[in-house]
Amino acid sequence: MSPSHYKQIVLNSRPVADIEPDTFRTESRAFSELKPGQEQALVQCTYLSLDPAMRGYIRDARSYLPPVKIGEVMRAAGLGVVVQVGPGSKFKVGDYVSGAWGMQEYAVVKDKHLVKLELPTGVEPLDYLNVLGSSGLTAYFGLKDIGQLKAGEKLVVSGAAGSVGTIVCQLGKAAGAKVYAIAGGADKCKWLEEEIGVEKALDYKSKTFFADVKKHVGYLDVYFDNVGGDILDFMLTRLNKDARIVLCGAISQYNAVKPKGLQGYMNLISQRATLRGFIVMDYEDHYPEALHALRKGLSNGAIKRKFHIVEGGIEQAPKALPMLFSGGNTGKLYVPRRVSFPCEAY
Amino acid sequence: MSPSHYKQIVLNSRPVADIEPDTFRTESRAFSELKPGQEQALVQCTYLSLDPAMRGYIRDARSYLPPVKIGEVMRAAGLGVVVQVGPGSKFKVGDYVSGAWGMQEYAVVKDKHLVKLELPTGVEPLDYLNVLGSSGLTAYFGLKDIGQLKAGEKLVVSGAAGSVGTIVCQLGKAAGAKVYAIAGGADKCKWLEEEIGVEKALDYKSKTFFADVKKHVGYLDVYFDNVGGDILDFMLTRLNKDARIVLCGAISQYNAVKPKGLQGYMNLISQRATLRGFIVMDYEDHYPEALHALRKGLSNGAIKRKFHIVEGGIEQAPKALPMLFSGGNTGKLYVPRRVSFPCEAY
Repeated sequence: MSPSHYKQIVLNSRPVADIEPDTFRTESRAFSELKPGQEQALVQCTYLSLDPAMRGYIRDARSYLPPVKIGEVMRAAGLGVVVQVGPGSKFKVGDYVSGAWGMQEYAVVKDKHLVKLELPTGVEPLDYLNVLGSSGLTAYFGLKDIGQLKAGEKLVVSGAAGSVGTIVCQLGKAAGAKVYAIAGGADKCKWLEEEIGVEKALDYKSKTFFADVKKHVGYLDVYFDNVGGDILDFMLTRLNKDARIVLCGAISQYNAVKPKGLQGYMNLISQRATLRGFIVMDYEDHYPEALHALRKGLSNGAIKRKFHIVEGGIEQAPKALPMLFSGGNTGKLYVPRRVSFPCEAY
Repeated sequence: MSPSHYKQIVLNSRPVADIEPDTFRTESRAFSELKPGQEQALVQCTYLSLDPAMRGYIRDARSYLPPVKIGEVMRAAGLGVVVQVGPGSKFKVGDYVSGAWGMQEYAVVKDKHLVKLELPTGVEPLDYLNVLGSSGLTAYFGLKDIGQLKAGEKLVVSGAAGSVGTIVCQLGKAAGAKVYAIAGGADKCKWLEEEIGVEKALDYKSKTFFADVKKHVGYLDVYFDNVGGDILDFMLTRLNKDARIVLCGAISQYNAVKPKGLQGYMNLISQRATLRGFIVMDYEDHYPEALHALRKGLSNGAIKRKFHIVEGGIEQAPKALPMLFSGGNTGKLYVPRRVSFPCEAY
């Protein structure tokens, strides 16, 4: 017996600073609306990916994607299983897929917006929202194209225990760089040193953090920045000549009403350094090259990862999302569907 | 009859903010010390160049050149005439030369640190401290290598009535860009529109400045920045996708105890934009290419320039230097030797 309704998380109001309890609301929609058309499939969502970029999606500002509208289903990437197909669809019922159908339990999605999961040795479905999803691709192109990291250079990574940061650290190591990881708290730092194998992990919550950076890193060649704010400003004073700063994110500032300004930018002149932003979607034509390398890293164990799963169904997503901004997650953050739902996926 | 002593301007104390009356002092040195050795020449300085970078030279901070020490002759580029030559020097008495012998009336300089002036049609000696000196080279490589300006793009130039800015505007026009010039006051703006021929000059002292930028420029492709501070921060909100910001200088901040921070840097991510600093000396191997183009621009009239000369001898340099930070000069700023000195140069 199928359920008559399914749940959606929609944007209820735009937060001024932190995400609030009324930022999102859960809506119930009738299943009868869901009928896949030409070259479409009905997908049951099994996992939602929660990402820092989501804070940007709900801001009413000029950006690389239009803001999510009030009342619209919240933008999100997910994993799912095909439960029904429309005429001409290349998918079969039971196929495991990934796509960006948003925060909802079911969705009708065009074939061209779905990726069928391949699962060679070492790869599991959740990797498609992480190492083989936007996190891995972001790490790969950010480090290669923007960072232009070379063997022997010093790479500093902030947000290093997050999904992108962890991958950057490991790609950096594989490229022959000396990797310094910034994370919050002793546990994350221990994990980065012992499991991920960075040269040194630096705890930004420590009172000696800035001195620690000076002592252990000295000056850096590439800074892969996921956090912005004070740490980015400090790193501007630690640049080697020709240093590159990869502006990937600024998670410390996403909730800020008035972002902390960078005072150290004149060091970019004296050190002939570059501060450059990028958006992974621009590299779509080169995804196959990156995915090949990332899949290989997973298969041979060179890329490790940690999953942080918040159970309870997609209605947990609004409560889990703020963890990304408070450092509450360790590893990639997911919200799975309620286990009691029909149509089992892996 | 030769004078027995000559003057030097030495660093007396490091200013905390603005250059103060006691920042420099004038010293008198005995001529008897000046004897050119092997492959050296004794040069009489005829013109000193005053440049915003000088504020950086007297700051005790890590930079691309070591700071001038207390008691040391202030670093400066100059024009001069050879008055005596040592054994094996390639120069002759009477040769016009340029070099960086600092703020002093006479100096013994190694041959390899002197450039003999060539003066084809359209080129005058003062150009060797301007269009054919570091200003022109800075404009050329900043716009070409860092800005990567293409025909049809929108170029915004701050400090546009200054020595580098004026040249950038004209190189931008020659490259087929739409050029918008930022300067302080109606006179400079009028000159930039009528003489230099920019698309639109924008007066940063006007109350409607930010609105004027939005109205006339909209969004920009290349921002050649000489001023830093609030104007740079605002321009971060006016970037087209893939925009390049050429960080050449930050003259509004050079005297600041605590520089104004940039809040808009997250736009670099959403617009995939680049903020990049550079130092012209790194391009030394490519100077001939640039000088060829700049000399051609002078000869055919494509590059115009304005000289602002503060008379009274090199002891005027400490008083003239702050004009660069208050917008007091219009065009390239020079201090000539006292006209009453012996050994006439042009």
